[in-house]
Amino acid sequence: MSAAGRFPYSNISQPNEASCVPIADVSEHYSVLQSTRLNYVPPKPKILQGTFDVSPVAAKDRSFFKSSAAAGECDRIAAVFPNLHGKPAVKLVKAGMPACSVNGHAAPRANGAANGAAPRQLRVGIVLSGGQAPGGHNVIAGLLDCLEQRFPGSQLLGFRDGPRGIVTKRYSEITVEAMLTYRNQGGFHMIGSGRDKIESAEDLERAAAAVTDLGLNGLVVAGGDDSNTNAAVLAEYFLARSVRCSVIGVPKTIDGDLKNDAVAISFGFDTACKVYSEAVGNIMIDAASARKYTHFVRLMGRSASHLTLETALQTHPQAALICEEITATGTTLAGVTQQVADIVAARAAVGKNYGVILIPEGLLEHVPEVSALIKELNELLAGGDVEGSSGGSSEDLTGGVSPGAVSARLTPQNRAVFDLLPAAIRGDLLRERDPHGNVQLSRIETEKLVMALVEAELAARHAAGTYAGKFAALAHYFGYEGRCALPTNFDATYCYALGYAAGALVAHRQTGLMATIGDLHKPTAEWCVGGTPLTGMMCIERRRGKDKPVVRKAMVDLGGPVFMHFAAARERWALEDCYRSPGPIQFGGGGEAYMATLTLALERNNGAPIGIF
Amino acid sequence: MSAAGRFPYSNISQPNEASCVPIADVSEHYSVLQSTRLNYVPPKPKILQGTFDVSPVAAKDRSFFKSSAAAGECDRIAAVFPNLHGKPAVKLVKAGMPACSVNGHAAPRANGAANGAAPRQLRVGIVLSGGQAPGGHNVIAGLLDCLEQRFPGSQLLGFRDGPRGIVTKRYSEITVEAMLTYRNQGGFHMIGSGRDKIESAEDLERAAAAVTDLGLNGLVVAGGDDSNTNAAVLAEYFLARSVRCSVIGVPKTIDGDLKNDAVAISFGFDTACKVYSEAVGNIMIDAASARKYTHFVRLMGRSASHLTLETALQTHPQAALICEEITATGTTLAGVTQQVADIVAARAAVGKNYGVILIPEGLLEHVPEVSALIKELNELLAGGDVEGSSGGSSEDLTGGVSPGAVSARLTPQNRAVFDLLPAAIRGDLLRERDPHGNVQLSRIETEKLVMALVEAELAARHAAGTYAGKFAALAHYFGYEGRCALPTNFDATYCYALGYAAGALVAHRQTGLMATIGDLHKPTAEWCVGGTPLTGMMCIERRRGKDKPVVRKAMVDLGGPVFMHFAAARERWALEDCYRSPGPIQFGGGGEAYMATLTLALERNNGAPIGIF
Repeated sequence: MSAAGRFPYSNISQPNEASCVPIADVSEHYSVLQSTRLNYVPPKPKILQGTFDVSPVAAKDRSFFKSSAAAGECDRIAAVFPNLHGKPAVKLVKAGMPACSVNGHAAPRANGAANGAAPRQLRVGIVLSGGQAPGGHNVIAGLLDCLEQRFPGSQLLGFRDGPRGIVTKRYSEITVEAMLTYRNQGGFHMIGSGRDKIESAEDLERAAAAVTDLGLNGLVVAGGDDSNTNAAVLAEYFLARSVRCSVIGVPKTIDGDLKNDAVAISFGFDTACKVYSEAVGNIMIDAASARKYTHFVRLMGRSASHLTLETALQTHPQAALICEEITATGTTLAGVTQQVADIVAARAAVGKNYGVILIPEGLLEHVPEVSALIKELNELLAGGDVEGSSGGSSEDLTGGVSPGAVSARLTPQNRAVFDLLPAAIRGDLLRERDPHGNVQLSRIETEKLVMALVEAELAARHAAGTYAGKFAALAHYFGYEGRCALPTNFDATYCYALGYAAGALVAHRQTGLMATIGDLHKPTAEWCVGGTPLTGMMCIERRRGKDKPVVRKAMVDLGGPVFMHFAAARERWALEDCYRSPGPIQFGGGGEAYMATLTLALERNNGAPIGIF
Repeated sequence: MSAAGRFPYSNISQPNEASCVPIADVSEHYSVLQSTRLNYVPPKPKILQGTFDVSPVAAKDRSFFKSSAAAGECDRIAAVFPNLHGKPAVKLVKAGMPACSVNGHAAPRANGAANGAAPRQLRVGIVLSGGQAPGGHNVIAGLLDCLEQRFPGSQLLGFRDGPRGIVTKRYSEITVEAMLTYRNQGGFHMIGSGRDKIESAEDLERAAAAVTDLGLNGLVVAGGDDSNTNAAVLAEYFLARSVRCSVIGVPKTIDGDLKNDAVAISFGFDTACKVYSEAVGNIMIDAASARKYTHFVRLMGRSASHLTLETALQTHPQAALICEEITATGTTLAGVTQQVADIVAARAAVGKNYGVILIPEGLLEHVPEVSALIKELNELLAGGDVEGSSGGSSEDLTGGVSPGAVSARLTPQNRAVFDLLPAAIRGDLLRERDPHGNVQLSRIETEKLVMALVEAELAARHAAGTYAGKFAALAHYFGYEGRCALPTNFDATYCYALGYAAGALVAHRQTGLMATIGDLHKPTAEWCVGGTPLTGMMCIERRRGKDKPVVRKAMVDLGGPVFMHFAAARERWALEDCYRSPGPIQFGGGGEAYMATLTLALERNNGAPIGIF
């Protein structure tokens, strides 16, 4: 370090916006495994191997694609999406079967050349939106291969750093050569990602101008529920203004909360679960070996607890908190504390002063009393009527606010919650406020809060003579390392098919659809491929004071087979050591390397393992 | 959770001390990969495949086993270990070569049966000491197989939960059947581990009585530097009291700081490095994809920074702090902060507001100014002469001590360091004191401290107009998940050979040796197997006010090939994105699956890759 000194690079200019930027050559930096994975060839559904047409899904099949909107909501969704609403789902069928007619255009043959006609050349854009998820590069690869193989001379443009790249027209041309160094690789770094939405009138207009200027036949948007809502908005906008650019969504999120009847799983969930399960499994073996620590492990997943639930099914922890259950049962923070402390105490009584507790990072947002406290704290602190709530010396530990003074001003209910919090957490809450002075729930390390509460509860029981165990706790957080891992064979294969499908849908002038792959429980060759209307996945939600149609987020279904499976086993897992360590993802050699998540197996295959082959 | 309630298990009694305890049947809890690994058969050095004798290492080979004691220290070591000191290193040689005579006993043929004599039956104990390290179960397996194959009817006892199990005579008999479910598995849970040392006169006597009562021919101790020092103490004690029980050490520690001329690597280091490198590599791909976070990653390794160094070599971070260099250069905490801030600023100047910084967990112990501060704080707080240093209300955020009052009482030099610390860290330091009221350095999350210091420095530069980047930081800690991972093929093979070697040394009535495997850069078949005197690895260190001979801890050699390799590349890594993602450990399929650490390759093979085959 000492030799590094200052670097003479400050004269290099910032990258220019609104331009075609080269894709970095990263080939010299690959590990052996990364290089090996470059050569993996994902198996392809049979329908994508021959010539195909798209066909509306017959009425009898429509149950598979049933709308998620509640009765009464459909009309309101139709009002916002008059051009999109009511369009059918489609599926790819072998060429020669009756082709559908969409938007008044006859659908072209998918592989024009094979049918004697001159092949069309397409220009397609792709954008990655929101947080990273393993498999994104394979969506691009599948899309590229579709264009290359079926529409030679086509061009694929990758918009840089998310939707902002569309409105600023900042993109990279994705060539076959550039793609070679990203196939089956983790991350989104080939073109980057971003969290912007294209919603303002100005941005929508700029996006329409961009795709027109660039002559795009289609725009593929890989993203989560919000990004796909945005894709629907774009598709509707383009249709309304006769911009002839298809918009196709691709279901992406490690959180696993973008799923519905038509979408069995979002890409990235499979890999992320396996990365977290590896880490948690290792921690468990450590717990059972050292026999002296209770590990509190926070896992990513702010809204839904799918990641925590799947990791629990894979590893068998002492407890896994599931936000949806906490909400449904109205469990308080004190209640959660009691439940965990009960398990720790029951184990201590049989000499087991160790264990592993899984906690989804969204926990605090699902405990109503905490939300209420945060709300009152913000009002109180913004009002500036708490002693010392402004100013603060350099020795200031709590943003100038005395916890005592704050506590005294709170309503009794919120005061009880505030006083329940450990001193360090109270300090963090008052200190780490955002630029508007608001308390930031997300800055609380949830696993440490639960740990501190359980510790305090056990100390109280110890004082009361009802607990005589030893409690030593350790905190862990597994999150970012799951977003950019090398995709599993499942994610690599699924994403490739999704990208290929998106290309096929663009070629067939479909729009406002999400690329969907069905029959995932069957061998890859038999997967069915199609597109499902984004509007059909929508419901009405209140956002910033307005009712808005949005793609529905899929929460853990407490009556579904995944949660039921967990609920049936967890009492045994709590007391016995049923630890299971899935180990690192294996890319070859059979076994678990080829197995999809238990969540998918339980939801789509009656619990029978789903393999990738 | 709500259904769990209280558990009716409190009437189950605590496990009984001083007894033979059954090994749990865990076979139903294995993942597919765990099950697959049970069937892995580590390749075996050729010398362990046939019949062998032990032979003192000839004088011309002794450079390989040269003593680590400084001139003048040897006599002091000899004074503490009069019976052990001066014994030769030994190596296994093909049977028929001249056998050595040790302790006045003629060495028996290793494989008595093969030589027509009645095979000896041995009773051997094994104990796992200290923190978990991947491969421990294979040490047991290798030892068991040696006894089973060469001395049928022998017995192997596993002492429970570390050295305490010896003095309490709490053990499990390790059968071939029980072993079947632990081969190639991570963790130490078959028999547990513990951090106790057998040092008091009473404990030494109890240990001698235990091995005598149990009729042990040998005791194998797998542990780090301290545990192997303790093994030497036991060996000396047994010799002095004519207790005919060999004591053989096995080099274990993920930290990699138990190595010397005779010991190329400690077991567990290989796997732990790869687990951390996987996580760090994933984080890097995320950094390059999101392009908005600087990740501060703390890695295990309190004394030496080998884990951080190897992980840096594998992944190419923007910076990796190496404690040995910080100590050698006398770099202050402010200096470390400047160096990291310089790198962040240089990258920001070229539009890269992201990066990855690796930090060994022992950093603060190596920054002299922090140690000085902690020392004065403890004296100050113990004296009780700081305003509010005792008592404290329920609203107390800092253990009743005002940071302002503390700061005012410190010497100017320590005050400067204290005031440099972010408010939250100051609060933690004053609040989280141990039962004696001492500030606990280990409770500081080092990566968050460095992150906060860098953030403050960048804010100052921003105010001064010398930095215009965006700084958003995230903290990570990877530690416990590396201690109990499934061992790599290297660790599985190395450990098996170590265990087998330990059995051979016991059978040949060797004592006070560490089992050592040489020529690791050659194919496994050609590895050489032997034992090296523990006293030869010792130096004199001051511990608790007394000079004590201890097995020397190997720190990072700043003049050695590993650090030099890092130093030559790090400036480029700092500014360019040379990220390399090793990915998850692969157990089959060639490539990196079979490659040992770069540290070993650089130290023992001129940097050429070392494979396991």
